[in-house]
Amino acid sequence: MTQFYRLFIEELKDIYSAEKQIAKAMPNLIRAAKHPELKKALSEHLKETKKQITRLEKAAKELKESFAKASCVAMQGILKEGSKVLKAHYQKDTQDAAIISCAQRVEHYEIAVYGVLKTFAKHLKLTKIAKWLNESLQEEGSADKKLTKIAEGNLFIAGVNTNACQPD
Amino acid sequence: MTQFYRLFIEELKDIYSAEKQIAKAMPNLIRAAKHPELKKALSEHLKETKKQITRLEKAAKELKESFAKASCVAMQGILKEGSKVLKAHYQKDTQDAAIISCAQRVEHYEIAVYGVLKTFAKHLKLTKIAKWLNESLQEEGSADKKLTKIAEGNLFIAGVNTNACQPD
Repeated sequence: MTQFYRLFIEELKDIYSAEKQIAKAMPNLIRAAKHPELKKALSEHLKETKKQITRLEKAAKELKESFAKASCVAMQGILKEGSKVLKAHYQKDTQDAAIISCAQRVEHYEIAVYGVLKTFAKHLKLTKIAKWLNESLQEEGSADKKLTKIAEGNLFIAGVNTNACQPD
Repeated sequence: MTQFYRLFIEELKDIYSAEKQIAKAMPNLIRAAKHPELKKALSEHLKETKKQITRLEKAAKELKESFAKASCVAMQGILKEGSKVLKAHYQKDTQDAAIISCAQRVEHYEIAVYGVLKTFAKHLKLTKIAKWLNESLQEEGSADKKLTKIAEGNLFIAGVNTNACQPD
């Protein structure tokens, strides 16, 4: 085993831990979301997260490795900020904006890691695994775009916008 | 002040803390990087980080707010993983790959937050601040693309690739 291969495995363990944390935290965000479009986008992402976990477990089997013993501290931090938002008891429209903000941090962490992992897998000539990692990367990209569209639209923000004021 | 405006300020504080942490951590990554192209990309990003801090300080002044008292736990987690990598004493090519991986997590966190902040500023009709946030967002996007190009190229990875092996 080369050191580079070990690094690849470490990164796979990191994202596996991150995905498991996301799958655990997502139902709280879904419950808290007000706007149906946001609820739907998050629910779809939870389904995708579960698929991504399965893909990683397939990769672990293929590589004869275990990804179980790891704890992604970065995702812990991102989700800690998310749970702080839920405890802030914002009114619903603002809470939706805060949930989108948290979810986009989650997506982008995953985009960064899956992007790196796909490149590493290609360098290691692990074609099948590179393909699986790319599937997860594409899903993350689409989920992020969907959230941006919701945030940019006048959907959930309508109530917020009406009451918005300039700082004094 | 609406709740949404307060959320906007909280998010600004979060990225200000994140940027300050990045500016502090980046010199270690630059020192540890082997490949000149990577060293250069990280050094340029450090310069941009300082510009982004200045932009946020301008925004704080404009909004008559202070962003000082905040601590972004998500960035703490991301950088903690980065410092773990430096302590792992990988050989230089693998260490470069690990540094890129850490830097891309950093960039993507910033892309997520600046994207959200830009949208929030637009909703709040804070045009000047939205423009500054967009400038930082564009810089982050370019920095991320640069790192991806280095990772995908055969530059730093040449040594790694030659020794790469399939898992048994």
